[in-house]
Amino acid sequence: MMNHPPTTRTAARQLDEQDPLARAGERFELPEGLIYLDGHSLGPASKPALAAAETTARDEWAKGLIRSWNEADWINLPKTVGAKLARLIGADATDVIVCDSVSINLFKLAAAALECVDTKRLLVEADEFPTDQYMMQGLSAQSGARFVRVEPGDAEAALEGGGVLVKSVVNYRTAVIEDIARLEAIAAQHGSLIVWDLSHATGCVALDLMRDGARLATGCTYKYLNGGPGAPAFIYARRDVANQLRNPLPGWFGHADPFAFDGDYRPVEGAARFSAGTPSVLSLRALDGALDMFESISVEQLAQKARALGDLCTWWGEQLGLESISPGIGAPRGGHVSLLHEEGYAIVQALIARNIIPDFRAPDAMRFGFSPLYVSFTQVWDAMEALQDILQSRAWDQPRFKVKATVT
Amino acid sequence: MMNHPPTTRTAARQLDEQDPLARAGERFELPEGLIYLDGHSLGPASKPALAAAETTARDEWAKGLIRSWNEADWINLPKTVGAKLARLIGADATDVIVCDSVSINLFKLAAAALECVDTKRLLVEADEFPTDQYMMQGLSAQSGARFVRVEPGDAEAALEGGGVLVKSVVNYRTAVIEDIARLEAIAAQHGSLIVWDLSHATGCVALDLMRDGARLATGCTYKYLNGGPGAPAFIYARRDVANQLRNPLPGWFGHADPFAFDGDYRPVEGAARFSAGTPSVLSLRALDGALDMFESISVEQLAQKARALGDLCTWWGEQLGLESISPGIGAPRGGHVSLLHEEGYAIVQALIARNIIPDFRAPDAMRFGFSPLYVSFTQVWDAMEALQDILQSRAWDQPRFKVKATVT
Repeated sequence: MMNHPPTTRTAARQLDEQDPLARAGERFELPEGLIYLDGHSLGPASKPALAAAETTARDEWAKGLIRSWNEADWINLPKTVGAKLARLIGADATDVIVCDSVSINLFKLAAAALECVDTKRLLVEADEFPTDQYMMQGLSAQSGARFVRVEPGDAEAALEGGGVLVKSVVNYRTAVIEDIARLEAIAAQHGSLIVWDLSHATGCVALDLMRDGARLATGCTYKYLNGGPGAPAFIYARRDVANQLRNPLPGWFGHADPFAFDGDYRPVEGAARFSAGTPSVLSLRALDGALDMFESISVEQLAQKARALGDLCTWWGEQLGLESISPGIGAPRGGHVSLLHEEGYAIVQALIARNIIPDFRAPDAMRFGFSPLYVSFTQVWDAMEALQDILQSRAWDQPRFKVKATVT
Repeated sequence: MMNHPPTTRTAARQLDEQDPLARAGERFELPEGLIYLDGHSLGPASKPALAAAETTARDEWAKGLIRSWNEADWINLPKTVGAKLARLIGADATDVIVCDSVSINLFKLAAAALECVDTKRLLVEADEFPTDQYMMQGLSAQSGARFVRVEPGDAEAALEGGGVLVKSVVNYRTAVIEDIARLEAIAAQHGSLIVWDLSHATGCVALDLMRDGARLATGCTYKYLNGGPGAPAFIYARRDVANQLRNPLPGWFGHADPFAFDGDYRPVEGAARFSAGTPSVLSLRALDGALDMFESISVEQLAQKARALGDLCTWWGEQLGLESISPGIGAPRGGHVSLLHEEGYAIVQALIARNIIPDFRAPDAMRFGFSPLYVSFTQVWDAMEALQDILQSRAWDQPRFKVKATVT
């Protein structure tokens, strides 16, 4: 399966010509001439996502008004969009619910899991995404459970000591992939539970949560799923586990019969109990539309292309003498590659000025994201050639490229 | 100020002709001929809300992509939309942040407040909106604080015993208004804290949180603010209080420097610390547009008209011999009036069949909502005449009007 990345632009173009996903790219509303390598941060707008958002606003909201909760089935959107998403993470359709943000969902799942483990410890690796760390610090203060920051890579030993581990499947800086099955087996052996953060994995990794024995997970939908800025997150909770868990944020949308207006909370069956308040319908429907882009595309196809694009970037990085902190050519890897340069921020700005958009993570990581739905091999080639030119000509060495923006 | 409601359709029309808010109605995208009396559940779409949603999707997202976090200032939307909303609740612009749902925000505020009171009790009246009750039950299980369900109207005595009270300013069934200043004074005297739920009050009541000494509040934006289905909620936290509080759901958007990617949480100053995850930008921008509808309109104007419309409904209810559970003519009242009838569900369906939309709350309350921005006196008159006809002709007594929908 594994091929050496193309070493000429012509060879790159040949890969595009054979690419079964190439047609999908045409349905994104990407500006002409732009090479967008930041889908690991915010995926672009697709025609079905924009159409769904507009139909929802102009027809369902403006014309249907309150009736749309029934007639447009808004009430079931958290479930129906969750079911649509389930295949992309290898879950049963009824085990996924779309709700709230990853931050909020991490709290719900970890707090619920904490009640089911004997050792009241909250385990997070030190290089975990910040919000994952913050939420566990908050839960620790709230619950009295011990917050344990684990050295990167020491999750296994931590699980053996018992507790709840919050762990990204794909590391947001390095794109290193965790082996879900391996850690779940260790967790099961030691009475620990893992809350997987799938934010950087969904849509670019061949996830199979059921096969791998994952019990709890959350993830964001605005990266490789292209759900729109701040699109709602999802929760996966395997039914047998879900039914033993208490949602610590038990809002009316997780009630067994929300419109009975009972005074007492009674959770609905399964993952849906992790819903809380009224869902943001406009955002949820944009995601609903965005997921249509994945129809008849397998997660294996997505993963294979994302890796091949990343391999090409890695090969180029080697030619340019740039250190990579991401897994090398042919190794399992998430959807992005991080190349290091102490002037990385300015270099990224210089690329943006040439209509090529990667992003930057302090202090020195240039992240190039390879969303398999719309990035082509030729685009990666051209982006890397531009990078070569910027490095060789020191085009990045201008004051205008060094002004830091609020969001980097 | 208080006038008897008009007793003829002509008199109702005269009120419309003198109504300074009448022009606002033209900027809503309401279907021709529809009388919409359900704005207390879901407000309608306005031109500026739809325009903001579409600009955000088609330009800021599709064209600007990741750059829009800076260039379209998405990153500050929770604050800027909060600041826009602040005037409508009588708050300082910097004391309001838009984030998450009312359910989630109730948890944040009550959990934070609980740490600041000596008596660890969570107080909720038995007729409080269900999600408020559920969230406090959840927080009680989480924190060990005692959940105390108080008889309706006994909030004052409960506050004297100490604790955190969650309390709607306008009751969702009856539209009875609570006196914020009175309860805050009692709370202050006894070391208690109140988390106000402004969901049914914002946009139809002359709120003045600063004047009344309110310290913590949340509210929804999809009712009288017309922010769109499931539009994000807001949090008000008076600065001096906010800075003493710990957000129990400390996501990266409440961090003092979210893009520094620190491992440790450090809250930003003020109400903004109650942000958690990435905000749903599409929904947030629809709300942003919707708030433009309130430009140069005072909360006193909104409240006065809402009450006058409600008075007219109440007067009609008396003529029709229907019991009202809402405050009477001339009394302070929220934006709706609840008239009782044991066949209320079928009667509401019969009204909907005539293009008049109120809603129904089991077992017997027909809720008629009077959003001051787009409901006219003539419309209320016509709706009540239709109600009279339906009652007199027993037009509701048909099987098709008795089929219960999922959402009622």
